[in-house]
Parts: sequence; structure tokens; C-alpha cells
Amino acid sequence: MNRYEMMEAVKAEMPERRWKHTLGVMETSVLLAERFQGDPVRAEQAAILHDVAKYWPTARMETMIKEQRLPEELLRYDKELWHAPVGAFVAERDYGVNDAEVLDAIRYHTSGRESMTLMDKIVCLADYMEPGRDFPGVDHIRELAGHSLEKALLAGFDSTISYLLQQGKRIFPLTIAARNDLITQLREAGQ
Amino acid sequence: MNRYEMMEAVKAEMPERRWKHTLGVMETSVLLAERFQGDPVRAEQAAILHDVAKYWPTARMETMIKEQRLPEELLRYDKELWHAPVGAFVAERDYGVNDAEVLDAIRYHTSGRESMTLMDKIVCLADYMEPGRDFPGVDHIRELAGHSLEKALLAGFDSTISYLLQQGKRIFPLTIAARNDLITQLREAGQ
Repeated sequence: MNRYEMMEAVKAEMPERRWKHTLGVMETSVLLAERFQGDPVRAEQAAILHDVAKYWPTARMETMIKEQRLPEELLRYDKELWHAPVGAFVAERDYGVNDAEVLDAIRYHTSGRESMTLMDKIVCLADYMEPGRDFPGVDHIRELAGHSLEKALLAGFDSTISYLLQQGKRIFPLTIAARNDLITQLREAGQ
Repeated sequence: MNRYEMMEAVKAEMPERRWKHTLGVMETSVLLAERFQGDPVRAEQAAILHDVAKYWPTARMETMIKEQRLPEELLRYDKELWHAPVGAFVAERDYGVNDAEVLDAIRYHTSGRESMTLMDKIVCLADYMEPGRDFPGVDHIRELAGHSLEKALLAGFDSTISYLLQQGKRIFPLTIAARNDLITQLREAGQ
């Protein structure tokens, strides 16, 4: 499947506004990859596919998590997290993606994880700050992204965790692991 | 060692202001145990000993964590967390405490943990809200403690996590596990 066919197929999986968001994540992933010595072509592929399962019915995601032995722990957390590992599975099975880093970037784009790859960081940050995003603190994240991928992503995770605190919702442990690890990376880099 | 001897020995381990805090945690633990059908005598014993290692030099705590095979993971997190498991070890070795629930309440009084016992909750909450405590939100925690141990403790963990977010500090995973579990408990109780 070529880039154009992939875009058409993913577009058909979501409402117009979400496709516009996907275009924003693609554009921002390319920009961040160029800025931080990543691979723009592969980062864009991950961005095209990152929300491919976002509009699947909950029951369909739940069935796939169970049948395909994706981490069942997810089912105890917010449904917003489910589409990422389901999306990685779909990207491999239905879109023929076999690039492990691209699949991981899709798999962890919502939660983050410990020891995020450069591509994980790019796609996750692009999802926070693409031009269509508008939430308290997003402009600060965009400013930080001008010079530090890690500082910007840390600010992104901080905003997610603050939101979950305010809402009285459970916090996914991988997000805490991702944030803790970014703090360590920044400290070790003397930043 | 009787209650009086234990209090004298612990008092000698800390500055006057911390001993005053310990008296506050004792008083509040007894009050919460009476309010929520806990055991006031054993909760008070955990409270007496909870900060026994608080003023140990960092190097001494680090040596004990390594030598006694306490969770070394702690060393990657804030030093404020170390005195709790070290304190539980000291309570057993030097104060002759062999009540597993009292030792656990000391061990987890700073971090919390998944599946906290009633005594864990009482001592941890007493440490947040004893009369000498003064931080943003403490009065709200005291109000909640009038009717719900879990809601009050959840507000306590929320304040800790917010503080760590603001300070750019790492968040100990057990605290997230404790908070997530309290949310589940409250949801299952229909609260």
C-alpha cells in the first residue's frame, strides 16, 4: 500500500475533524523529525496511522485486546488509551507495516513508555501540539518544542496528569514511567 | 519495650518539632481508628514509630536499603521516601515490633501502595492531616476525613502528585497505584 492509498484508507475510518487532526499530526511529526534528527518519512507513516482505530466501537477494541493478547491491563484504564495498541496491531495486519519503530510509535502515542525512542517522542509530542490542538498550556508546549523534544513532551505529560487529577480519573502507570524517565534524561543531560 | 519507653526512644531520634508532628499523627491515628472501626492501639503504635528513621543521614539509609535488601528502586526516587521502609526495618529490629500490619503501615506511610489495609490508610492519612500540618488543601482533606477515609486519602495523594508535577520531580509508582486503587474502591462502593 503506497502513502496515498494508506491516507485514503485511514481517512475512511474517521470523521472529517479527526482526519484534519491526523493531517496536523503528520505535518508536525515531519517538522519535529527534521528539527531533532529523526526520520521524517517513517515518522509521517506512524502519524498517518496513529488514530486508525480511534473510532472503533469499544466492544470491538475490547475483543481485539483479548483475542490478540494485547495488554489486558489496559481494560482497567480509560478507553481513550485502547486505540493506540489496537492501532499498532491493525497497522501491521491490515496496512502491512512491519517497521517495529513505526509500530511502537503508534502503540505508545497516547500513554508514552519508559525509554521512549526518538520516533515515539516525535509522534507523541506531535499529537499533543499539532496546529488544531487547543488546551491550557499547549502554547507553552509548542514553545518548548522549539528547542527541546524532552522538555516539551514532559510538559505534555504534565498536562495529561493534571487533567486526570482534576477529573478524579485513574492515571496509567506507563505515563508516569515515561514522565519519570524524561526527568532522568533531562537531569543526566544537565538540562 | 512498653509504650512510654518506645515514645522516649523515638523522641530522642528527632528534633522537637518532628516529635510534635509525631504526637499529632498519634492523636489523629487514634481518632481515625475510632471513627472508621480500626484498632486505635495498634494504629497508635505505628504512628509512634512512623518517622523513627526520618533524621537518619542519607548515607546511613542508603546503606541499610542495600544491606537489608529493601527495594533498591527507592534509591532512584526522592530521599523523602526512604525513611518509611527503613523505619519499618528499625521498628522490627530495634523496637521488637512483630505485628505485620503495624510494620506495613510504617513501611507504606509515605508512598501508599495498592490494596492498602485499613491501618495503612489510617496512618498515611493521619500523616497528611495531623493538626500541625499546613499546606494548600489540608482543610479540605480534614473535611473529607469526617466521613470518608478513602476520599480524604485520595485528596492527600492528589496534593502530593500535584506538588511533584509543579516541582518537576519524579512520581513514585506506588503512589499512583495507591491512588488508582482508591478510585476503583470508591467507584465499586458507588461513591
